[in-house]
Amino acid sequence: MSDEPYEFAVDAFRREGLLEPAETGTGPAHDGTGRVDLSFSPSGRTVRVPQGVTLFDAASWNGIAIDSTCGGHGTCKKCKIQVVDGTVPVSRLDVRAFSADQLKDGWRLACLAHATQDLGVDVPPLTTRPKAATVGVGRQVILRPAVQKRYVELDEPTLADQRPDLQRLYDAIDDLELRADLHALRRLPTVLRQADYKITAVIVDEDLIDVEPGDTSEQRYAIAFDLGTTTVVATLLDLATGTPVAVQSMLNKQQPFGGDVITRISATMMDPDALGRLRLLAQETLAELAVGVCAEGEVDAALVYEVALAGNATMTALVLGIDPEPLGVAPFVMSTAAPTDVRAADLGLSLHPGARASLFPALGAYVGGDIVSGMLATGMDRDKRVRLFIDVGTNCEIVLSDGDRILSTAAPAGPAFEGGAIRCGMRAADGAIEVIKLGEDVVLQVIGEVEPQGLCGSGLVDGVAELVRVGLLDHSGRFVSDEIAKEVAPALADRLTYVGEERVFVLHRPRGVTEAAESVYLSQRDVRELQFAKAAISTGWTLLLDELEVDPRDVQQVLLAGSFGSYLSPASAIRIGLVPKLPVLRIVSAGNVAGEGAKMALLSLRERAGAAALLEEVRYVELSDRADFNDKFVDQLAFPG
Amino acid sequence: MSDEPYEFAVDAFRREGLLEPAETGTGPAHDGTGRVDLSFSPSGRTVRVPQGVTLFDAASWNGIAIDSTCGGHGTCKKCKIQVVDGTVPVSRLDVRAFSADQLKDGWRLACLAHATQDLGVDVPPLTTRPKAATVGVGRQVILRPAVQKRYVELDEPTLADQRPDLQRLYDAIDDLELRADLHALRRLPTVLRQADYKITAVIVDEDLIDVEPGDTSEQRYAIAFDLGTTTVVATLLDLATGTPVAVQSMLNKQQPFGGDVITRISATMMDPDALGRLRLLAQETLAELAVGVCAEGEVDAALVYEVALAGNATMTALVLGIDPEPLGVAPFVMSTAAPTDVRAADLGLSLHPGARASLFPALGAYVGGDIVSGMLATGMDRDKRVRLFIDVGTNCEIVLSDGDRILSTAAPAGPAFEGGAIRCGMRAADGAIEVIKLGEDVVLQVIGEVEPQGLCGSGLVDGVAELVRVGLLDHSGRFVSDEIAKEVAPALADRLTYVGEERVFVLHRPRGVTEAAESVYLSQRDVRELQFAKAAISTGWTLLLDELEVDPRDVQQVLLAGSFGSYLSPASAIRIGLVPKLPVLRIVSAGNVAGEGAKMALLSLRERAGAAALLEEVRYVELSDRADFNDKFVDQLAFPG
Repeated sequence: MSDEPYEFAVDAFRREGLLEPAETGTGPAHDGTGRVDLSFSPSGRTVRVPQGVTLFDAASWNGIAIDSTCGGHGTCKKCKIQVVDGTVPVSRLDVRAFSADQLKDGWRLACLAHATQDLGVDVPPLTTRPKAATVGVGRQVILRPAVQKRYVELDEPTLADQRPDLQRLYDAIDDLELRADLHALRRLPTVLRQADYKITAVIVDEDLIDVEPGDTSEQRYAIAFDLGTTTVVATLLDLATGTPVAVQSMLNKQQPFGGDVITRISATMMDPDALGRLRLLAQETLAELAVGVCAEGEVDAALVYEVALAGNATMTALVLGIDPEPLGVAPFVMSTAAPTDVRAADLGLSLHPGARASLFPALGAYVGGDIVSGMLATGMDRDKRVRLFIDVGTNCEIVLSDGDRILSTAAPAGPAFEGGAIRCGMRAADGAIEVIKLGEDVVLQVIGEVEPQGLCGSGLVDGVAELVRVGLLDHSGRFVSDEIAKEVAPALADRLTYVGEERVFVLHRPRGVTEAAESVYLSQRDVRELQFAKAAISTGWTLLLDELEVDPRDVQQVLLAGSFGSYLSPASAIRIGLVPKLPVLRIVSAGNVAGEGAKMALLSLRERAGAAALLEEVRYVELSDRADFNDKFVDQLAFPG
Repeated sequence: MSDEPYEFAVDAFRREGLLEPAETGTGPAHDGTGRVDLSFSPSGRTVRVPQGVTLFDAASWNGIAIDSTCGGHGTCKKCKIQVVDGTVPVSRLDVRAFSADQLKDGWRLACLAHATQDLGVDVPPLTTRPKAATVGVGRQVILRPAVQKRYVELDEPTLADQRPDLQRLYDAIDDLELRADLHALRRLPTVLRQADYKITAVIVDEDLIDVEPGDTSEQRYAIAFDLGTTTVVATLLDLATGTPVAVQSMLNKQQPFGGDVITRISATMMDPDALGRLRLLAQETLAELAVGVCAEGEVDAALVYEVALAGNATMTALVLGIDPEPLGVAPFVMSTAAPTDVRAADLGLSLHPGARASLFPALGAYVGGDIVSGMLATGMDRDKRVRLFIDVGTNCEIVLSDGDRILSTAAPAGPAFEGGAIRCGMRAADGAIEVIKLGEDVVLQVIGEVEPQGLCGSGLVDGVAELVRVGLLDHSGRFVSDEIAKEVAPALADRLTYVGEERVFVLHRPRGVTEAAESVYLSQRDVRELQFAKAAISTGWTLLLDELEVDPRDVQQVLLAGSFGSYLSPASAIRIGLVPKLPVLRIVSAGNVAGEGAKMALLSLRERAGAAALLEEVRYVELSDRADFNDKFVDQLAFPG
């Protein structure tokens, strides 16, 4: 990543020829970073942006709404602002939009006003509905979806004007380089004439996917999918307002093939039919959710024109029917980082027949589109702070940004966090202990308010962290002797016992049960499993911190992501050393960031471009290639003092 | 059309940034047309091309073969030529391809050598197989098909090189901006590993449609379709050599819906199911022919990666399933001039699953893709002569070029040429009289060497022309009296008789038949029908000639096209006034030019771009809009004196 948070946008402008080359800039000299400060009134906000960015975009990125109906394409002439401090050259359109006096007073169209020096800018109040939504981790997204609807009233053809129907439509929407699907072309002559040449064009990116009679421009929807290995979440979005209409989730129907990506990849290697079946199961999961959210939101599925999908590299390969085997064996290679040209129908979805699918690009076989989506939602590429992003799971993805460079890696944490390989482990379902506090007694929080049946990942982390805190586990991860136990935690000491030869700590003994083996407990081996898992993760971020020469204490924020990470107690995560030893407020549960990123991609083409730009900006560090991995790993096994 | 025959190519270069802007040209000043003369040795040919064109293209367009394996993309460094007169600046690649001495001696790579002044150029003999084919009316086409195959040997991935499979392939083919179909992406990981990373990429334009194990680069085919209202022709082309492998034709299965486009359009207006059935019938016709040519050529249909289709606007709409009604009623509007993004599967073809379809663009509802294809095949846009192109049929398309501007129009000739509305009229099938000579006797040439059963269009034209020549028809189109008949043609006079009240000329009286009504004859009303038909056509070209202020005697070539036009006797066409009164050698039967154009589009992307450019260059003149049409039409009814 360069030191410009919006460098990808600047490059996009350069490619589009919208930005004057640096050497022709007319503003005063700047510091080496080529940034300018823009003070917006009446909001009073000052933002620092790369030199040359338009005032419209600078405002948009920072959640300052400037009037616009064309989305900053230089066609609507609504984005009027007044430059009250500093100067901006007059553009070709300014001359048409303003009087000479107004131009002298600093009035400009924001979308053509390039900031080449520090400026004070006065933004008039909106006269059109604000078009922004808050998504992700405090991200304000100006609505500029790939899906657009344009209502047009066309002139009827005459012998003197025999333009083809499609040309007539293109001429009316001349700010886009449209390209018609065959489906849209088939409908056009009929719809045009039925609707007296008053129609709404349905556009995704610059593809004309349909035409509808009359004005349907407010009816446009999209579905964001978070295709997890375990859980799949669908959010139906109203693109006209940027708001979610319905959200549903369900278990991935691929579950019978194994709980994690490796078992599913293995299935395809063993059985030639497995790939086809896994593909179908993933598609059925998506289809069922799509039907569900449309029903819940009372939205006709044919009005859903786009879907976005964030999934790890294996889930993405499987749902597309691509052999995942190379992802599962060294050297861990993806078929592609960024599948393009996918339609919703290719994912088995029955939405609008021309609906497009936007799949998040992946950084590597084990840092997939779900992580890129999460990085987008958390603004990993836009924040100047030192931030660590950890998606905890069987495979743990770690991203580190020092506000300038971004590194990512994947650490094989194993199944401990999913409850696998843990004696009383279970998924985070009804009956799972998810929070544990040790004091005079054991206080348990159980999912579903039922009798505890086992321990899920967050309960495991809490349990081990609490046992270390009260001194029943030493820092090497070994249960203490009965003598020491009585001394350090007399109220809990009798729970420290044996199942067979193995030392265990009983968390819950059901009524009438006398045998420890029949209770819910945490064993010495469970602790070892967790130590291995957390050591893998902390080795990952330690190596990334080393790589960027950042001291762990300088990390300003740790984002715990993923369905598991979001439930983890920050204090326990610190205590077992899963995250660096930091003030607890710096550890933030980020929620389902993959799903949030998918929503952002649907709401904003610019954010989507940001996700694509991450492929260039983020350097992937392969851990299995590191000579120092094993040494570091052993160092990380103990719990912090 | 501009006065630059290759202007579209120049524009393409400008867009690609391959051409320096005129003001930076370093050559000496030129005349206003901005052209340069290039003398090629040893061929001794001098060609005049627009300033700035590369020597490679200038040579290619003029059938002078320069060595190249990359097709002029600046990658193979094989297109070495020596500038022996004049100078060409040294390009960035020249420095790598030649020694300093060679550069001083004028050696350059032709594909990067822009001609900015008159030059003498020495072209070394070919060391690779010549890559050109002769198609159309004497057109030499340098092979640069949209379909490319590239054999590559990729490095196996390692932990130090985890590039995704697709990226690895893209990096190996970095002269193209490839974009992969989902099908290709699905195959890639498997094929790569099966074939030890030695694979052939199948590319259409810049779409990667498949990957094949090993080197299959010589196996690539395409099918050119001429989708006529009556007859459909398919040509299977070997794209590696540019040669046709098999040709088959059959009647369009839509025949039961009517013989011409109007009856088929009417069918869709009357019956809501007709469009779907017509679409299916057209697709079945294409599919049957595709199977046929593949079988005849012993080519696996999965090796056919592209098809080109030339058809009139109605046939094109029907095969795509687009409602043709607006084509059939004023103001005669097409849904689109140029359908894009069509796949062979959309046409009902089972070829390679990703095979693309390139449909010829149309100039108007009645000057369709078949005519644009014909214009390409006859070089209407490249020839500096005054040329008239006439596709004779129920709807007659006329194109006039004065070597600078091109006009087109459509004339409603009616069904006479198809044998419709003619008493003894019939299709050009077995038993149809196709040639008639009158002398001491009537000499007939009959299709299929069977007893004459009727008269097809060319027989009708011959018959009327001969009757005018021998004086049995006067110039107003009226049969002469028996008295005059005996005087002017005593040997034939007794054939002039009556059927009912109508005057007829008996062409053939079967053995034992005594009644004229049971013979094959030509009636007064038939003559009138032909007069109406030919007057519609000659009014068309007369109006076009007027429009360009060209005297009919200055027309240097008349191309008679279409399945009917090609069989017409030039002398008879002149005699009845179907074409201007010109030396007979100037009237050329051009053959199935629509099919030839489709072949050219498959063999050369540049030719295909030429067809697209015709949409901008050709002005369509609508006859039904002309106040002077009726007057001119009446003037044209008589036969020339």
